[in-house]
Amino acid sequence: MRNLYHDRLDQLSTELADLCALVGDSVRRANDALRDNDVVLAERVIGEDGRIDRARVSCEEHAYALLALQAPVATDLRALLATLHTADSLERMGDLAVHVTEAVRRRHPRPVVPHVLLPRFTEMGRIAVDVAKATEALIRTRDLDLVPVIGALDEEMDDLHRTLFTVVGYEDWAYGVATAIDLSLLSRCYERFADHAVSSALRTRFVVTGELREQPGRVMPRPRVLS
Amino acid sequence: MRNLYHDRLDQLSTELADLCALVGDSVRRANDALRDNDVVLAERVIGEDGRIDRARVSCEEHAYALLALQAPVATDLRALLATLHTADSLERMGDLAVHVTEAVRRRHPRPVVPHVLLPRFTEMGRIAVDVAKATEALIRTRDLDLVPVIGALDEEMDDLHRTLFTVVGYEDWAYGVATAIDLSLLSRCYERFADHAVSSALRTRFVVTGELREQPGRVMPRPRVLS
Repeated sequence: MRNLYHDRLDQLSTELADLCALVGDSVRRANDALRDNDVVLAERVIGEDGRIDRARVSCEEHAYALLALQAPVATDLRALLATLHTADSLERMGDLAVHVTEAVRRRHPRPVVPHVLLPRFTEMGRIAVDVAKATEALIRTRDLDLVPVIGALDEEMDDLHRTLFTVVGYEDWAYGVATAIDLSLLSRCYERFADHAVSSALRTRFVVTGELREQPGRVMPRPRVLS
Repeated sequence: MRNLYHDRLDQLSTELADLCALVGDSVRRANDALRDNDVVLAERVIGEDGRIDRARVSCEEHAYALLALQAPVATDLRALLATLHTADSLERMGDLAVHVTEAVRRRHPRPVVPHVLLPRFTEMGRIAVDVAKATEALIRTRDLDLVPVIGALDEEMDDLHRTLFTVVGYEDWAYGVATAIDLSLLSRCYERFADHAVSSALRTRFVVTGELREQPGRVMPRPRVLS
């Protein structure tokens, strides 16, 4: 009985890592759609978000079933609760990839990102893909050395998000107000994408170490300021 | 033993409702700080966010303790998992109130919202307070009639968020790009605030009915598009 149960816990962990892989694919294609102003690819990312939603529902239902039927304690309990939390974060990361492609669709045929700012958003997209890969590896391996890797990627992302506001919206800004708004919200999507990965990483660390608090009085990292 | 346990479940529900009350206070004061361009009040909201974070940690720790020690099933298990989810949403709502006040602090002494747009943001703030109140009442009473009330408030909020982009960023926009960006991100804070309340409401409904899916293949409402 206990062996079957642990097999099911392992299956659930694989299911969660596979969900993360789907999210990584989604954000990679969203980046490509943004870079190439490819509305067909954008539509595909939007259309396939349902796969991520269904994979999340499946993870959640399996976690609930194990919680209800097995009444796990200690590490197993933590692992199941972390699964619920991470599945939530991953679905939200998928939604943020969709938001990127929705901007592409909304502005088509005009590109969302002016040519001069493409390198900045390409870099944000690269970090998002790396964050998704590191999160997937962390879920599969529980190698806690990946937690600071994800933290460092999140800091890179935050820097890019913060410094956007030194470029956009200043007096010599030549691309109009609507573009400035698009870019601010787009940048915020990428920044939140990495925040959710950090949140998942800290939950996974909690599974391994039992240590939930980041600092006294704090369970999770504070989300970054808006700008 | 079971009676003590149910007392502790009830206490936890009260603790969660009290956390929601703190969030409601925070967003109400954030609204006032925004309306009056009151940087002292803004600082106070920012400084007191730690209370919300600590209240959330406390809820979470009590929920974990009950899960680990009592191995609850069925309704009690659902209630504890919903508590974890809702505590997460409420802390995030508190963070969004802080984002509003950070904008006040960042732009001081200039007001964030041009006079002509104050009625719109006052209305968003009013809805946020009503959403927090309804969420608190739902947690205290589990009266499911409040779920569609929260849903309707969220729709009002979404409409205001969506239509902002018909006002800001158009050719006759007179307040500059930086203001347009501030207002877009501010509007998004209010919109997300209501989204988190909806998410909590659906979890509470799940506690009562056992029905997690909103529609086939969907656990939670899809977050709204960015604009």
